[in-house]
Amino acid sequence: MSKALPTRSENYSEWYNELVKRADLAETSAVRGCMVIKPYGYSIWEKMQRALDDMFKETGHQNAYFPLFIPKSYLSKEASHVEGFAKECAVVTHYRLKADPNGNGVIVDPEAKLEEELIVRPTSETVIWSTYKNWIQSYRDLPLLINQWANVVRWEMRTRLFLRTTEFLWQEGHTAHSTSAEAVAETKQMLEIYAQFAEEWMALPVVKGVKTANERFAGAVDTYCIEALMQDGKALQAGTSHFLGQNFATAFDVKFQDKEGKLEYVWGTSWGVSTRLMGALIMAHSDDAGLVLPPKLAPIQVVIVPIYKNEEQLTLISDKVAPIIKELRKKGISVKFDNNDAYKPGYKFAEYELKGVPVRLAMGARDLENNTVEVARRDTKTKETVSLDGIADFIATLLDNIQVSIYNKAFAFREENTVKVDTFEAFNEILDTKGGFILAHWDGTSETEEKIKEETKATIRCVPLDSVEEEGVCIYSGKPSSRRVVFARAY
Amino acid sequence: MSKALPTRSENYSEWYNELVKRADLAETSAVRGCMVIKPYGYSIWEKMQRALDDMFKETGHQNAYFPLFIPKSYLSKEASHVEGFAKECAVVTHYRLKADPNGNGVIVDPEAKLEEELIVRPTSETVIWSTYKNWIQSYRDLPLLINQWANVVRWEMRTRLFLRTTEFLWQEGHTAHSTSAEAVAETKQMLEIYAQFAEEWMALPVVKGVKTANERFAGAVDTYCIEALMQDGKALQAGTSHFLGQNFATAFDVKFQDKEGKLEYVWGTSWGVSTRLMGALIMAHSDDAGLVLPPKLAPIQVVIVPIYKNEEQLTLISDKVAPIIKELRKKGISVKFDNNDAYKPGYKFAEYELKGVPVRLAMGARDLENNTVEVARRDTKTKETVSLDGIADFIATLLDNIQVSIYNKAFAFREENTVKVDTFEAFNEILDTKGGFILAHWDGTSETEEKIKEETKATIRCVPLDSVEEEGVCIYSGKPSSRRVVFARAY
Repeated sequence: MSKALPTRSENYSEWYNELVKRADLAETSAVRGCMVIKPYGYSIWEKMQRALDDMFKETGHQNAYFPLFIPKSYLSKEASHVEGFAKECAVVTHYRLKADPNGNGVIVDPEAKLEEELIVRPTSETVIWSTYKNWIQSYRDLPLLINQWANVVRWEMRTRLFLRTTEFLWQEGHTAHSTSAEAVAETKQMLEIYAQFAEEWMALPVVKGVKTANERFAGAVDTYCIEALMQDGKALQAGTSHFLGQNFATAFDVKFQDKEGKLEYVWGTSWGVSTRLMGALIMAHSDDAGLVLPPKLAPIQVVIVPIYKNEEQLTLISDKVAPIIKELRKKGISVKFDNNDAYKPGYKFAEYELKGVPVRLAMGARDLENNTVEVARRDTKTKETVSLDGIADFIATLLDNIQVSIYNKAFAFREENTVKVDTFEAFNEILDTKGGFILAHWDGTSETEEKIKEETKATIRCVPLDSVEEEGVCIYSGKPSSRRVVFARAY
Repeated sequence: MSKALPTRSENYSEWYNELVKRADLAETSAVRGCMVIKPYGYSIWEKMQRALDDMFKETGHQNAYFPLFIPKSYLSKEASHVEGFAKECAVVTHYRLKADPNGNGVIVDPEAKLEEELIVRPTSETVIWSTYKNWIQSYRDLPLLINQWANVVRWEMRTRLFLRTTEFLWQEGHTAHSTSAEAVAETKQMLEIYAQFAEEWMALPVVKGVKTANERFAGAVDTYCIEALMQDGKALQAGTSHFLGQNFATAFDVKFQDKEGKLEYVWGTSWGVSTRLMGALIMAHSDDAGLVLPPKLAPIQVVIVPIYKNEEQLTLISDKVAPIIKELRKKGISVKFDNNDAYKPGYKFAEYELKGVPVRLAMGARDLENNTVEVARRDTKTKETVSLDGIADFIATLLDNIQVSIYNKAFAFREENTVKVDTFEAFNEILDTKGGFILAHWDGTSETEEKIKEETKATIRCVPLDSVEEEGVCIYSGKPSSRRVVFARAY
């Protein structure tokens, strides 16, 4: 093993960067801002994808695939949309290379210039709505409930693995409806699905809310979001669901004939989560020894490490664990038996701690005698010696308990770090000490929101869906306010 | 329903294009050469992905993800590789748009020009081997068995849905090994997996073989392939597996220390199949009424159409089929009960024929009385009335039989259309009449191969792995030859 990870208290940011690399999740590539997702990291992402995809399909959505490239003119059709994305677009201008006449490899062939430049999709509303125009004629064609798993590119100036990368992987749902109410219901349904996924799979409690106008998706009427709290007291937006109104239908002239024969613009939604969720997962639960993974997303849920002095002992241990492995796999639990002779048990323990394997079993000579095994939990780092009788059931239950326990810990952390604040002084003090979610009154204007951001770097994460009406005054302007919003510094 | 499909004999090419569109598989997009894969088409692709992915994982491969963009200089590092791909590269030259000072939407910001242009990956050998350099130091790091599911872009001048598109979806495996023998074994293993997938899932018999030097992947030492025969007598390359030797390891300086401490270049393979398989699937089995899908890849395996005169009859039929649907689903069979009142049974029959649903059940008043159902097979278009007792088992067996039957039909077609030819005259005659696979002697030179191609448009599809040694003379040059190769005109 190389030297220990930086600790979270020492340098949270370095701890994160090092952890992502050392746990074999991802690394930077030769292409500025683009990452390589390594097999271990990708297998977590695959589990996320499978769970989300099942949830999308259960709610009637189908997958499809739309082009990577968007003609430049399409992007311009929705005014606020292009304004939001123009500054971060990768642009394809040519379609051929040729040998450099000076003999230095290849150059772009100036004769192969595109008539109209193509944008590498930063998101696909424009190309999808231009397609929907041909798919939708009548109310019978609605609702159209489509999702796409894809890569997208946004040219970011400052990038960090998973959290903000030039290219990232995501899913983007794009639905079309005959009424505003139905589109709003879809927007909210998908927000609920994201929240459910975050809580049940990622063990990550989230606040559901609505973005302010400032933080809205470029082209949306309303943006709903889920916001999670990281261990350093900063917020992370984990997913968004947008009610698009008739904005894209108008821009791309997508109309339908209703039951009375009247032509009307279609109502739309879009919603997405990305590999950013990987960043949230890592930062929410992990500790100074490495990753802590909720069992439902762990590529290896149980590792078994034999502790032996000779070949004969290893054989006895292997024979002993073989039926246990079989029984665990039958229960759908992923198990690895690490009998690699090149490494000592201590090295293996540290490695699986770093990789966040939820349960580690160690079996040695004494366990063989006593018909026991040592069971170690990654999340609490506790160990106990357990009888092999009924061990598979014991482990299945333990994995369920760990899943709940990781959630509870994150939930307790968020509760401790969510405070109501009534003065700008107290607001600043909290931000500069423990951070977290700050519930405060705000006068509802973009002006105040921007000033607070300028002075404190804190933004309004959302107006929580469960916020209660409450008379108060804005912490900044002193003007009246009727409900608290959630402020935080954010990723 | 709109007018009938063009027939295959009338115009095979138009039949294919129309079928792809009408069966809701894919359509062209506003971006030249890029397709939109529609939900029904995409759900077939998802089934292909799932089956292949399982096979890759069973043989020890892991998924990962590498950047979409490749620095131009990387592409140049392997000489024959860049020569093969330079002419079809989409090139990103800028990273920002800005408002047009003349008020016409947005323009490319000339100040946001990249120092080095980025190529949208046409394939990922270069970016992956540049990464492998950091992952591989010792023989302990090998083999490295990685696969990626991704989109790639090759700027094609003439495109056709699924068969040849500018952007397509695929998987690309990239493995690294410590010996040449191990890399060759991997190359052959993946060819076997592709062949198994084509035959068992797609019901498509394939010829396994090796490409001639002319047809080899740019950068490979050897290219293995599977070749399938379409109904118009043209061949379609359905998958390739490349032994890369040490070419990319040399270009990117990827060395490993062997057990004796000696540094050596790593041996590589790459292998891929793409959405082109969708084209093969459609063209191999479908008929003038529409798609014929092998049950293992059909999104809907069984459709049930009620035939009723009134609401009461519909209720009786619904009640009768409910437990059958449940039982079929329990067996993992996908079933749709189409009780949509807006369309007549005849319309529905035609629609499901067009979409290739393998089995259609129709239930009317008389069936209710007799405890029967009408079972129609899509592949043979035969119908029979069957008792409802044990119907679920009957259908499960029927689906298995249909899968085999579709394969057998395609196999018989290929056998009928594979001929041995010993003169150039006969060769030309076959090509101009029935086409198909032509087994002929060839003198082994690129010169002859190219002349035959020029004069006949037929290419050597492969040297079959199971070809037997046989004395003969080249049909073109008359020079001696020791084995027959497979010629065909191809997609």
